[in-house]
Amino acid sequence: MDRLRVVFLGPLASFSHQAASESFGKKAADLLPHVSFADAFAAVQSQEADYAVIPCENSTNGSVVQTLDLLADRNDQYKDVKVCGEYYLTVHHCLLVHKGSYPSGWSGYDGQITKLYTHPQAWGQCENVLSKYFKGVERQDVSSTSKGAEIVSKEPTEKSAAIASRFAAEYHGVDVLKENIEDRADNTTRFLILRNVLAERTAKYDLEQPEAPTSQEKPVHEDTHKTLVSFSIDHSLPGALANALLIFKKHGLNLTSINTRPSLKRAWQYIFFVECGRTPSDENKDAVVKALTDLRDVTEYCRDLGTWKDQLGANAL
Amino acid sequence: MDRLRVVFLGPLASFSHQAASESFGKKAADLLPHVSFADAFAAVQSQEADYAVIPCENSTNGSVVQTLDLLADRNDQYKDVKVCGEYYLTVHHCLLVHKGSYPSGWSGYDGQITKLYTHPQAWGQCENVLSKYFKGVERQDVSSTSKGAEIVSKEPTEKSAAIASRFAAEYHGVDVLKENIEDRADNTTRFLILRNVLAERTAKYDLEQPEAPTSQEKPVHEDTHKTLVSFSIDHSLPGALANALLIFKKHGLNLTSINTRPSLKRAWQYIFFVECGRTPSDENKDAVVKALTDLRDVTEYCRDLGTWKDQLGANAL
Repeated sequence: MDRLRVVFLGPLASFSHQAASESFGKKAADLLPHVSFADAFAAVQSQEADYAVIPCENSTNGSVVQTLDLLADRNDQYKDVKVCGEYYLTVHHCLLVHKGSYPSGWSGYDGQITKLYTHPQAWGQCENVLSKYFKGVERQDVSSTSKGAEIVSKEPTEKSAAIASRFAAEYHGVDVLKENIEDRADNTTRFLILRNVLAERTAKYDLEQPEAPTSQEKPVHEDTHKTLVSFSIDHSLPGALANALLIFKKHGLNLTSINTRPSLKRAWQYIFFVECGRTPSDENKDAVVKALTDLRDVTEYCRDLGTWKDQLGANAL
Repeated sequence: MDRLRVVFLGPLASFSHQAASESFGKKAADLLPHVSFADAFAAVQSQEADYAVIPCENSTNGSVVQTLDLLADRNDQYKDVKVCGEYYLTVHHCLLVHKGSYPSGWSGYDGQITKLYTHPQAWGQCENVLSKYFKGVERQDVSSTSKGAEIVSKEPTEKSAAIASRFAAEYHGVDVLKENIEDRADNTTRFLILRNVLAERTAKYDLEQPEAPTSQEKPVHEDTHKTLVSFSIDHSLPGALANALLIFKKHGLNLTSINTRPSLKRAWQYIFFVECGRTPSDENKDAVVKALTDLRDVTEYCRDLGTWKDQLGANAL
């Protein structure tokens, strides 16, 4: 088989790039940056790409609405795109400096840095270190953490530093002066891996989940499968949402997440996204199919958005 | 009684200012801008302010997560803040120009504008007019639509224009060259009105809902009351969410919205926000109290975030 074509949300050396690299790194895969969420979905729908790796939720910030809006697929543009896997990436930030500018490392640091670069969101994630060691230091927002690392790689001075991942440091060839400077050690982003269900190339591919994470802190729950379903309900029927959720319970499917987005058909009506898990057994092998059949009776619209192996052992709702 | 002190999310002439003005305009009220969502909550908790007017949801963009995170109140900072009302504001954008620069109005416009100012989100909401009349014109992002109107008020030229509300035009003294230039006529933001339940000043105030909207397109559903409840569940018990939602159904409370935010206690566990409505009657006058009692049996934590008069006639879930 030809090399896999895997798209991720750019730029190069972004957290999405890191997630794609860790998911597919051991396969023969070309990792291709795409500038927008919609481009990545379109590349999978057109089969220009085999897979897309897209952030869907962060443990601190919550759901990524751009991804939900594309999964909502209100205009039937991505009708063959389904989720086939997930990947959890713990977000670790490092303080990065120009290569060789601090030969004795952090122990030799004595207040030389006068300018810091990073994405606006990262400042708030590293407040402890910033307030302790970099009070009053000029902060320059950049479009991505990776961009900050790139700038530092091109400025041969010990006066500038960037906050970005070790992955970005290696990509741009800069030094890690101090690692794990984030306030919350458990800040994790979940990525969905998408494929086109009509694609023969990936249908023959023997793993629905391309590559399990190898980190010991993230055990692979091979025995649990997750399924994502979207639906809308008749808003004139009170209790319709409770009735829909009971169907999952009836078929032994444990809810693990629920999200809503505006329907955009009528104000204050919603598309629901429900994720559920099950441990496959002979008894429940048709549970998802049966639940979807029942759901069609109590929803206006209902769509199976894919089933994949749970990588975390998600909490029940 | 002294004049009411009502805080809104600044700057002056923002959509929040407009919502506060339309909600409280007929009362003796001082409207005070606050720069952050947290400041507005804190002002109500400390009783520095009587009310706060805060955006909570937009019909196109969905929920406002900053507001949900403050209502989640993970550190018990706002324990006496509850919702006491709501207000729906339809977002209309106008093309604003320096006063007197186009005496014959839009009919006399002939391509003179070379620079446009607005908040980044507004460009995407006015694409039809922008692509038809302003293709290739320089776009300058500003921190708020109101700020754009202010800049145009100070630049005495016919070459610059801003996209902002009529309210901002009147506030900053600029002319409306073309009105209702938004793509979606139904783009509406819902604001919550907050008060401190311990505040004697507003307890004596005879209206829980300070001022009903007067627009004919937004009928006041005086007969329906809405209640907001937050809760967390035991994630080791499958079906806990479905059980919680069934309690609302059992007590005749129709769900109208459901949202989740990360608990921040443990990754992938959530705080749920459920809104429900009822038409008050002798039979259901204790429905909310009874539902909360039952909810405490099936949730880890459960909080009543207030009851108020429905201003829209919300859709059931």
